[in-house]
Amino acid sequence: MTSTTFTSFDHRMMARALQLAERGRYTTKPNPMVGCVLVKDETIVGEGWHQRAGGPHAEIEALKAAGDAARSATAYLTLEPCAHTGRTGPCADALVEAGVTKVVAAMRDPFPQVAGAGFEKLRASGIEVADGLMEAQARVLNRAFFSRIERGRPWLRVKLGVSLDGRTALANGDSKWITSAESREDVHHWRARCGALLTGAGTVLADDPHLTVRLQDKTDFIPPIRVVLDPGLATVARGNVRQGDVPTLYFHAPDAKPPRDIPLQRHPVPVTRGMLDLKEVLEELGRREINEVQVETGATLAGAFLHAGLVDELLIYVAPVLLGDKARPMFDGLDINTMTDALKLKLVDARQIGPDSRLLFQPEVA
Amino acid sequence: MTSTTFTSFDHRMMARALQLAERGRYTTKPNPMVGCVLVKDETIVGEGWHQRAGGPHAEIEALKAAGDAARSATAYLTLEPCAHTGRTGPCADALVEAGVTKVVAAMRDPFPQVAGAGFEKLRASGIEVADGLMEAQARVLNRAFFSRIERGRPWLRVKLGVSLDGRTALANGDSKWITSAESREDVHHWRARCGALLTGAGTVLADDPHLTVRLQDKTDFIPPIRVVLDPGLATVARGNVRQGDVPTLYFHAPDAKPPRDIPLQRHPVPVTRGMLDLKEVLEELGRREINEVQVETGATLAGAFLHAGLVDELLIYVAPVLLGDKARPMFDGLDINTMTDALKLKLVDARQIGPDSRLLFQPEVA
Repeated sequence: MTSTTFTSFDHRMMARALQLAERGRYTTKPNPMVGCVLVKDETIVGEGWHQRAGGPHAEIEALKAAGDAARSATAYLTLEPCAHTGRTGPCADALVEAGVTKVVAAMRDPFPQVAGAGFEKLRASGIEVADGLMEAQARVLNRAFFSRIERGRPWLRVKLGVSLDGRTALANGDSKWITSAESREDVHHWRARCGALLTGAGTVLADDPHLTVRLQDKTDFIPPIRVVLDPGLATVARGNVRQGDVPTLYFHAPDAKPPRDIPLQRHPVPVTRGMLDLKEVLEELGRREINEVQVETGATLAGAFLHAGLVDELLIYVAPVLLGDKARPMFDGLDINTMTDALKLKLVDARQIGPDSRLLFQPEVA
Repeated sequence: MTSTTFTSFDHRMMARALQLAERGRYTTKPNPMVGCVLVKDETIVGEGWHQRAGGPHAEIEALKAAGDAARSATAYLTLEPCAHTGRTGPCADALVEAGVTKVVAAMRDPFPQVAGAGFEKLRASGIEVADGLMEAQARVLNRAFFSRIERGRPWLRVKLGVSLDGRTALANGDSKWITSAESREDVHHWRARCGALLTGAGTVLADDPHLTVRLQDKTDFIPPIRVVLDPGLATVARGNVRQGDVPTLYFHAPDAKPPRDIPLQRHPVPVTRGMLDLKEVLEELGRREINEVQVETGATLAGAFLHAGLVDELLIYVAPVLLGDKARPMFDGLDINTMTDALKLKLVDARQIGPDSRLLFQPEVA
């Protein structure tokens, strides 16, 4: 990061670029969301955002919109421009060719084929480069992409619908419905962001979820794949999770016997203490270019992800209802014996969805 | 209620009167909170609110503030003026004598010695009376007073500090502290509203609470009495709950043996299924002019109040922390077996207190 002092106008333009970037939240996967604003004489002359992997990058869209006005303009970018030829040509070259004289970027792209090379290319062509403007916001925007690039595994969100007394189902397993129709509709927007929706064999048997995205409006999205953790491949013959066009990937124990007559996308992972190696599951999903995973499952698997320190985000819909002390808990196996063991969270967002309270937490890093 | 159409100005004045009334929330007990605004030519000429039982009523305060300007004025009152001579003279008479020509009231006073007699007295003296303006808000303001007058028992609020997974303590009973210092300070304002703070013998033994009001600022309040449900009078020899000047009242089983050497305020109530008759406890508190009770206790007693349908309000501080499935639940004994049995609540208020979410619920009446 340079020691540049940014003006209010700079902030306003970057905020706009971030807003544009977010329009791609359901469609850029596995690419990051990027926004670009071109400005001349404190006037916006072009805007663009990355809409779909394989399609034009944000810079190209903005340059196209600006046309000749891009000459001598300043480009506000939520991410360093690419310097390599991927599915499209390098954006750094395009900015140079268009005659842009200054680039203000939120952050460096950690993607190994960029990682500073975009900025270098710009500077080598005499373009002034300043970066670090609203970097925190830009990191949050693409937290899932950065997770895959930097940690080799997707950003993991656990979604739960619970009663006020922290119960996800009755003792008999019934959970239809704790939360409101509004909350259940809201969930689909979070699903649409994902590269994969993940559940366990137990939930497939008990609830038979579709794990698909159903948006009420006509918003475009790339459907996430469905992932089932099924050590014995016991559920592969059945269920809504196999219906429709969206692929379903099964993770299973090395010794599971896949049925001969059922075509199956599957991947074996080691088993530790009766549970599939969850880190290995996530790393395999990372290798498959999955940025973001939403886990929708019961207390056992959700608790195991949490206990393993693999949860990045908890999306909790709290319904105004009590289910009592015999109902099922939110997380099994946390193994908390003293108040200092308590698993501390940070509230990131809170709002009302119909009658329910939607709370977004991140575990505090110890 | 008359069929009067109220103007925006009327609403503004009544909103002001309600705001004034609420200033008495810690000090008018066992009286209701009342506010009065005197208006002439759309200008406020006097304001008042009831500050303390035994002291002047809101009308008298406002008339004093207005002086001669009260003549031909309109009085906005959050409650029907009294017609009887209690600790002070009848306010209806005072309004007549001062030459007020119109009274706009939010609601009738259900108190048997008023109950319409105040309005009648005014009308008999030629004063125009309109009532029902912002009645819903006026009822909420004095929900505790009305509870005692209309139902013969106090308004009951259960306060709980819980983890996100709905736990009030670890398996070993430790609960210090689930919620933040900010939340624990906030609780004192809710305590200060009360006529009594109630707990059980188990909580006295486990947590040794003071059950007193400690406000950080110098706000005036009348301290609530402390109430312990202790069937066998097993805890009377001990505890912070007996320290200080505030009286402590024990409810106990008829066959409990009170210790001879310890002076004790106590009241026997029948026992049903091993639990003191909670309705009888509340009715006795009603007879003692307690309007509002806050219950601060464990899952057993809190669950029993809830199961008995005696809870009017749940004040829940949800801390951003997880305690796991072995920790203690919010409510025992709710006996919910199907989703239709689930105890439905209505969210009345939600806000952040430090890192915690404070949620106020009312059970939905079936």
